[in-house]
Amino acid sequence: MDLWYIDLQKEHDKPLYEQLYAQLKQAIITQQIPTETKLPSKRELGDFLNISQTTIELAYGQLLAEGYIISKPRIGYFVEAIDELPYVEKELPSPISDEQEKPTNHFDFSAGKIDEEHFPFHLWRKYAKDIFDAPSKHLLQSGHPQGEWILRQEIARYLLESRGIHCSPEQIVIGSGTEQLLPMILLLFESDTKIALENPGYVAIPHSQMDRAIPVAIDGDGVIVEELEKTNADLIYITPSHQFPTGAVLSAARRTQLLKWANRSPERYIIEDDYDSEFRYIGKPIPALVSMDRGDHVIYMSTFSKSLMPSLRVAYFVLPPSLLPRYKEKFSHYAATVPRFDQHILANFMRDGHFSKHLNRMRKIYRKKHDKVMAVFSQHYPHIRITGDSAGMHMLLSIPSEKSEQQLLQQATQARLAIKPLSRYLFAPQQTIHPTFILGFGGLPMEQIEEAIHALMTSFYTNDTL
Amino acid sequence: MDLWYIDLQKEHDKPLYEQLYAQLKQAIITQQIPTETKLPSKRELGDFLNISQTTIELAYGQLLAEGYIISKPRIGYFVEAIDELPYVEKELPSPISDEQEKPTNHFDFSAGKIDEEHFPFHLWRKYAKDIFDAPSKHLLQSGHPQGEWILRQEIARYLLESRGIHCSPEQIVIGSGTEQLLPMILLLFESDTKIALENPGYVAIPHSQMDRAIPVAIDGDGVIVEELEKTNADLIYITPSHQFPTGAVLSAARRTQLLKWANRSPERYIIEDDYDSEFRYIGKPIPALVSMDRGDHVIYMSTFSKSLMPSLRVAYFVLPPSLLPRYKEKFSHYAATVPRFDQHILANFMRDGHFSKHLNRMRKIYRKKHDKVMAVFSQHYPHIRITGDSAGMHMLLSIPSEKSEQQLLQQATQARLAIKPLSRYLFAPQQTIHPTFILGFGGLPMEQIEEAIHALMTSFYTNDTL
Repeated sequence: MDLWYIDLQKEHDKPLYEQLYAQLKQAIITQQIPTETKLPSKRELGDFLNISQTTIELAYGQLLAEGYIISKPRIGYFVEAIDELPYVEKELPSPISDEQEKPTNHFDFSAGKIDEEHFPFHLWRKYAKDIFDAPSKHLLQSGHPQGEWILRQEIARYLLESRGIHCSPEQIVIGSGTEQLLPMILLLFESDTKIALENPGYVAIPHSQMDRAIPVAIDGDGVIVEELEKTNADLIYITPSHQFPTGAVLSAARRTQLLKWANRSPERYIIEDDYDSEFRYIGKPIPALVSMDRGDHVIYMSTFSKSLMPSLRVAYFVLPPSLLPRYKEKFSHYAATVPRFDQHILANFMRDGHFSKHLNRMRKIYRKKHDKVMAVFSQHYPHIRITGDSAGMHMLLSIPSEKSEQQLLQQATQARLAIKPLSRYLFAPQQTIHPTFILGFGGLPMEQIEEAIHALMTSFYTNDTL
Repeated sequence: MDLWYIDLQKEHDKPLYEQLYAQLKQAIITQQIPTETKLPSKRELGDFLNISQTTIELAYGQLLAEGYIISKPRIGYFVEAIDELPYVEKELPSPISDEQEKPTNHFDFSAGKIDEEHFPFHLWRKYAKDIFDAPSKHLLQSGHPQGEWILRQEIARYLLESRGIHCSPEQIVIGSGTEQLLPMILLLFESDTKIALENPGYVAIPHSQMDRAIPVAIDGDGVIVEELEKTNADLIYITPSHQFPTGAVLSAARRTQLLKWANRSPERYIIEDDYDSEFRYIGKPIPALVSMDRGDHVIYMSTFSKSLMPSLRVAYFVLPPSLLPRYKEKFSHYAATVPRFDQHILANFMRDGHFSKHLNRMRKIYRKKHDKVMAVFSQHYPHIRITGDSAGMHMLLSIPSEKSEQQLLQQATQARLAIKPLSRYLFAPQQTIHPTFILGFGGLPMEQIEEAIHALMTSFYTNDTL
């Protein structure tokens, strides 16, 4: 066996065994050493190259581990058959740098934005500091599939005190947001179970499962239950406290109708998404549908995205006892997706009453922002119809204009204003009298609200003869 | 209209308007006030109850918001038709308290456990303390669907330095673990695309999609590509560096065979899960398959579950440029599931070199644990065959016994030892010569390894005449 191509350099950065390994590997791949060749013994090669046998053992060991050679006990090492790799001309990925250089918007009216100015960083830091410590070392390992017990206890307590919902921590499942939890809920049902969705509404199910979705129309009182009755859906996903995006509150009559619908079959369930019930500006909170349910047919879900921050990625659902065995069967080996340390930080924050305090404080702040938005419109743009503003962080604007919603949207985008049209949440094109937009005000600083609204209205009425 | 049932108490905890609201609501639900009744005007009722009209306005406002009454402008308020709720006898959920009272195991040989003693809490605390601060307030809002740019940069750098993988942050997608990321990868392909899985192996796809799975046998060199060629799979999920659970390393010959298989069609992809390549005890790291790929057909994925902690829930995949446009189309509105603050803590920890240091330190610690396990077996139980121990935190034990794997498992469980049999990862019952178990040693403290192994072997050979 010819070994002329082996060239080891003692002064090289790489250790000798790595050089030897790399050169032999190259020779095998390029078939300079043909398949089935017997490699020289360690002693032979050591003498030939004037290096120690340990070096050769390391190199052979690595080639063996990666399968370039095989070892026949008491005979020696032999080169394995390695196919040459097919060469495929590969286009280099073009360096796409748009991600980091997106122009920022002047104002962002997204409904998902929250207030940035009043988050209690000092408290959060304190709880984080406390938990990232040696006594928490067991929290490094995987946690319970449903999330930490301590956090589920705090959520159960909160739901009882704030929403009148009686549930045990056992019924609660914590996850990284509605998007991640809803597919889990769907897996509790047969794969062909149809699910009704509010239209317009949040598309609560994965795109791959859209064939299961049945849009049901809504009006000012929320989802029209008569329309639901006409479908073959056995599940419905609704936002009764503050319909997304119209802001409608599901009326009492509709609530009982809906619960009756669900109680008509043991396999009918209502998924109640109570996503921003914490912030209500007129009257008391609207009671949760689940608290009226006497038949075990409501799966309640909510999130900390509005009440704390969207970036924490913590949401949860409460299973009725009838669904618990099914859940445990399907998901006992599942790992909860929220980091355990974050769950403990949040639980301790809640336990010490800071969550309630934060909500009370933020309710006042969002109310002020809400009132400011209403005041600017009534003073400067009284012809704009505003609806759905009784709760949450967004409202609907109907814009009287001869232009289409699409045209207006384009004008707003050109003015670097982020805003979404209502039609984005419609399942099928529908007649709308006026272009309608979703104005989220949660993320706008108080002192910029007036300027932001003027910028938006100016963009809408640019080059307009009206 | 008779109002005798209204009984407001000025000394009550609840404000007057809430009492009035609750009593009117009750009367409407129980139909003491019949549907379509006109409610007294605010002035009438105020005079009658001797309370202010503001109180009545608040109560009526809440009833209106919840849809119990409707308002006819300039006429008055009218009671809406509310169906009585169907009454369903409801069994109270039995208080299931097992969750908190599970007996703890004496020793846990789970493959997913990591060392708890050497995590750098002081550093993690420091980075957490730094990030939970007002200058980070923009991190409260939703982040990029693929995860934070800064973390993707650090991962790209790490992959280049440690695994020889060239990729840009743009190709990287961060998520809450393999379980959460794999379904996303599957969504990039047609819903009937078959996916080959190693047998035995990790069941990488959701149970609801098991009809897409095709098990392919493995041997000591990893997955048998000839077997794969016989299937109609266009995807394969593999763990080439340290096959889970057998520990086999995919041989060089198989690697090229596999890449050739993938390059035969533009829609064939290999999903390479490199889950514990960081810890290798014999020789150099095995090169990643993706680093050999010249045809853009490997989706690389890995996790921080072994290298840092399972409870952080951070994993990622690297898309080949060919799949990027498809990903962006499907997931542009998706929210990354890892909390943004955690992503920044991890990125800063990596940026300052602590991740590499931690890996080097842990590699030594796991190597010591590995060597200790091997020493205990060779000294006390030389008849036990151990395989798959070249890397990672687990190895396979073949137990010569006349008892079945199931019997041995039961004995170990009775001795409160957590361990999994190999058969748990088999897709169909297969002939095994000896019962085989997966011994994870990562979570065992060094000083307990000997005791733990003795406990395990004692449980296996309890009441045994062998």
